[in-house]
Amino acid sequence: MEIIRIPHIVHDTSNGHLLHGRSIGFVPTMGALHEGHLSLIKRSKDENDITIVSIFVNPLQFGQSEDFNKYPGDIEGDAEKLRKEEVDILFAPDKSLLYPEGFLTRVEVGKLSEKLCGAFRTGHFKGVTTIVAKLFNIVKPTRAYFGQKDFQQAVIIKKMVKDLDMPIDIVVCPTIREHDGLAMSSRNLYLNEEERKAAAVIYRCLVQTSEMIKSGIISKEKTRRFMKEKLLAEPLVREIQYASIYDPETLEEVEAADKEALLAVAVKVGGTRLIDNMLVKA
Amino acid sequence: MEIIRIPHIVHDTSNGHLLHGRSIGFVPTMGALHEGHLSLIKRSKDENDITIVSIFVNPLQFGQSEDFNKYPGDIEGDAEKLRKEEVDILFAPDKSLLYPEGFLTRVEVGKLSEKLCGAFRTGHFKGVTTIVAKLFNIVKPTRAYFGQKDFQQAVIIKKMVKDLDMPIDIVVCPTIREHDGLAMSSRNLYLNEEERKAAAVIYRCLVQTSEMIKSGIISKEKTRRFMKEKLLAEPLVREIQYASIYDPETLEEVEAADKEALLAVAVKVGGTRLIDNMLVKA
Repeated sequence: MEIIRIPHIVHDTSNGHLLHGRSIGFVPTMGALHEGHLSLIKRSKDENDITIVSIFVNPLQFGQSEDFNKYPGDIEGDAEKLRKEEVDILFAPDKSLLYPEGFLTRVEVGKLSEKLCGAFRTGHFKGVTTIVAKLFNIVKPTRAYFGQKDFQQAVIIKKMVKDLDMPIDIVVCPTIREHDGLAMSSRNLYLNEEERKAAAVIYRCLVQTSEMIKSGIISKEKTRRFMKEKLLAEPLVREIQYASIYDPETLEEVEAADKEALLAVAVKVGGTRLIDNMLVKA
Repeated sequence: MEIIRIPHIVHDTSNGHLLHGRSIGFVPTMGALHEGHLSLIKRSKDENDITIVSIFVNPLQFGQSEDFNKYPGDIEGDAEKLRKEEVDILFAPDKSLLYPEGFLTRVEVGKLSEKLCGAFRTGHFKGVTTIVAKLFNIVKPTRAYFGQKDFQQAVIIKKMVKDLDMPIDIVVCPTIREHDGLAMSSRNLYLNEEERKAAAVIYRCLVQTSEMIKSGIISKEKTRRFMKEKLLAEPLVREIQYASIYDPETLEEVEAADKEALLAVAVKVGGTRLIDNMLVKA
């Protein structure tokens, strides 16, 4: 595995592969790699000639009160995992190469960015779309891989790619879960033992709610009430930011889960913000 | 000359050329082609294997009270001019192909977009950077050509390309002028005979101001006063939006033209808004 730190070297390397007719799969990450990331990498390796993984903790997508400075990082451990997966290139740029002094440009996907997590994390998705646009221009992938756990992020990136005519296939892969159903996330490292156990309530809530919807109880009010009750049954759930049914394309809350709907949750367990979701059909 | 209306066909055509190692020069326009555009095209033909010109009047960059609906258009005449220049491809997309229903994304170059013309044309440069980002992704040019007449636009596009790691050289070409010095612009077509004559005052003002600066009178106050006096000597100049000395990179007004400075002007002659500029060294 080659480790490249300079954007234009990755770009030239990709260009060389593309000129030889090789497809490039790209998995952008912020490191602290877990099974979720590895599933994206495996999928990319299945579908492409070359797989490039980036590790970059993007300051632009963290709010002032958020966890940028304590975001978990272990570049040595991560590189080892990527070597085992036989990733071709690890792109690990320095912040000053991606955001040199005087950096001004932003890419923004309007109102999709204000819903769900966007309402609680001002500017977050603008930071995500800006860095992803940059990484796409540097890496020039044929396909890029994102996890369904970050459903809103995937919807927004698909929209950006379509609106800006970027010639890239966005592939969304299933959420990978711990044995008790907790969605894998680098932020799970913040949970102490007690909180870690409590966090399983999120997945239980999603499963039970989807069963309720499949049994025919589909109104927004009943769904919200049911989810709230399930989540608050766990005392370590300190705050429910959202928990309801949404349109999977517009991310608007829907009146009833009468066609395919997105069940989505954001809660704080102890001090840690966790999100999860599930697609459900009545 | 091939005329293509479908974005992905232009994209595939460009890709084919790039895979054969051919360079692509790109001249984005809104049509109503004049000698200024043709000079960009000639330069592109000199420097590239393939030259692509786009004609698209971009609704996103016009304010509500602006001239989108009456912007001059003559696609037949334009195509004829492009054929004479032996342009390879005219890309003339339909609006619904570039902005399908539900289009949401914007590309924005922060505070550079709020200076000079940006202060008088809210949202204008956001519309410009969004369409140019799209066109760049579709056309995949090696080099793209812009006129110095739209100095701020060129600065903003260079910044966008740098910030978003787009692998494109932005080439800024000299302003082409009428015999009396008026900068060529599609909007000159709006001027009646009397206004057309009056409009020459802009260039005279720039030349006289630059001579004054070269002679050592370089303060902002004196420059502003001198330019205002020169411009208002022409009774058909109805409004001065700005006329002063600026930093050519940040577009901030400078206290003194002691190094290379941008002399820039925006005025209304009759009801028509005209801009021009000149680089000057004390």
